[in-house]
Amino acid sequence: MPSYSHILLAVDFSASTDAVAERALAMSRAFSARLSLVHIVEFVQIDLTSELVIPQELELDQELVDIANRRLQELGEKYGVEADACFISQGSTKREILRIAEEQDVDLIVVGSHGREGIQLLLGSTANAVLHGAGCDVLAVRIQD
Amino acid sequence: MPSYSHILLAVDFSASTDAVAERALAMSRAFSARLSLVHIVEFVQIDLTSELVIPQELELDQELVDIANRRLQELGEKYGVEADACFISQGSTKREILRIAEEQDVDLIVVGSHGREGIQLLLGSTANAVLHGAGCDVLAVRIQD
Repeated sequence: MPSYSHILLAVDFSASTDAVAERALAMSRAFSARLSLVHIVEFVQIDLTSELVIPQELELDQELVDIANRRLQELGEKYGVEADACFISQGSTKREILRIAEEQDVDLIVVGSHGREGIQLLLGSTANAVLHGAGCDVLAVRIQD
Repeated sequence: MPSYSHILLAVDFSASTDAVAERALAMSRAFSARLSLVHIVEFVQIDLTSELVIPQELELDQELVDIANRRLQELGEKYGVEADACFISQGSTKREILRIAEEQDVDLIVVGSHGREGIQLLLGSTANAVLHGAGCDVLAVRIQD
């Protein structure tokens, strides 16, 4: 009987974070699996190939990462997840979640899903993006909009 | 702590059916949830608004449904699922899976996922289609191609 040993919960600090986290915690307990958290800080990328680097923007980015880090540590404490299992990254949400999942040998990614359809489906949601690139199972937790 | 009470496993009789089913069985045991099976028979739809109905086609369709029914019952016996929890339907895979999930008060749909990307993502997979229309959680089990 297959089981899960390491679950990665992707959090976005939205109002639905707790509902999605509760599912991940239930899965973690049901399968005695480790639980890690990941949050990706999305912001406008600075073109590093350009010689024009604006110091204020770099500082703002670092501030956003610091704030996200603090919020993630708080969530970790709330859900009983150790600080070294709380991952912050910046850039493409899909790429970074999948990279961390692979690096950390995760076998289940848990992500909230809004059940978008039509044009929003084509524009892509995190659940959709993760589902289609993941090398492991994905549990999409339906968020009641 | 949230739990799952009724899991619907979508089967396509492909080589990966057992691998996906084992995950669904593991979830069913972990959460003491009921397990139901669904298979959708896809074939070319006959235009019922037309007066031209070809008897051979209708017979062929019924034969496909009968074959699928027998195979699903066999899978049900293998996985310990009662005959009245094995659902066969015909038409759009996405629409029928979602319809049966809603009718049967399912709180988790389990589907296999090939992790398609690019143009195949736009063309749509069953996992993708189900994910975006489901009113409940969806577990996409990664199939190793």
